[in-house]
Amino acid sequence: MPKLWSDTIEEHRREVGDAILDTTAALVAKHGLRSVTMSRIAEETGIGRATLYKYYPDVEGILVAWHERHVAAHLERLASLRSGGGAPGERLRAVLESFGVICHERQRTELAALLHRGEHVSRGEQQLRELLQGLLVECVEAGDVRDDVAPGELATYCLHALTAAGSLPNRSAVRRLVEVTLDGMRASR
Amino acid sequence: MPKLWSDTIEEHRREVGDAILDTTAALVAKHGLRSVTMSRIAEETGIGRATLYKYYPDVEGILVAWHERHVAAHLERLASLRSGGGAPGERLRAVLESFGVICHERQRTELAALLHRGEHVSRGEQQLRELLQGLLVECVEAGDVRDDVAPGELATYCLHALTAAGSLPNRSAVRRLVEVTLDGMRASR
Repeated sequence: MPKLWSDTIEEHRREVGDAILDTTAALVAKHGLRSVTMSRIAEETGIGRATLYKYYPDVEGILVAWHERHVAAHLERLASLRSGGGAPGERLRAVLESFGVICHERQRTELAALLHRGEHVSRGEQQLRELLQGLLVECVEAGDVRDDVAPGELATYCLHALTAAGSLPNRSAVRRLVEVTLDGMRASR
Repeated sequence: MPKLWSDTIEEHRREVGDAILDTTAALVAKHGLRSVTMSRIAEETGIGRATLYKYYPDVEGILVAWHERHVAAHLERLASLRSGGGAPGERLRAVLESFGVICHERQRTELAALLHRGEHVSRGEQQLRELLQGLLVECVEAGDVRDDVAPGELATYCLHALTAAGSLPNRSAVRRLVEVTLDGMRASR
């Protein structure tokens, strides 16, 4: 069955949009933020400059969009771990490990500094906090997590504790960090 | 016994230096970063502009010096708690509580953003990490803290977990955060 014409256009737009984001990210990673221009991006993506400007006003706009897509993909992954199978405590460990690895791999570059100022980051953080808080409520009900501290406060604790992963040397250290962080939230002995 | 002339000069310089820092911090807190000028600072401190410039090249230089003094005072306080009386576990709690309160009270202003970029901050963080790591070694030896994770990694965990205090609404929440953070490090059951 042939697609509707509007669907095809929509799909084409999304493909071009994705190609612009991927190309820009690759160019910035290779040549640095300052040396990447709109002309270069258009050329490497294989589209005209005029077309590129129909999608984005400038390089920073492209990078913000690229980062938004990146954050959204992370959130989707965490959300699927959160609502996946298994006991609440197991899902909590899976979510924390996955977030720990994200923090560990997050690059401390000028690009990261630029992007993490953005409003979409605080929106993403808010979504992450809500996801975690909901899961912690389940864990408290299941008796896996302490009930003497509100789940919202525990979520704040978790998210900050796991940013330590950015200073750790390897994945084993990240796993130990997750265990220590989980131990802080265990139901009282 | 009369002071040596050089001591008196040294003391006078320190007093003027302190007065400049206090005055500038008060002016910035009251009027905002952008409206504070070297002339204004000289006037409020009660010294000539030429004298002020002998101490500092510009407002930012004064603010960095002010913040260095601030960080040094915090570190001194934490160091005295670290080496004060009591069992290692008690001193650990005291240090973490004090640091938690510092994080809680730290202001999220443009001034803070400006100052926390400075090199003296990473030096301060490094000193804090070393202080904490040393104390954690004592705690492990005393059997208060788990020995399956290296004290350096636990120090990283603590410092990040406690920055959560900046997002908490009050001191009670900060105390709960300290307990949760400590529970993560307890010797295994």
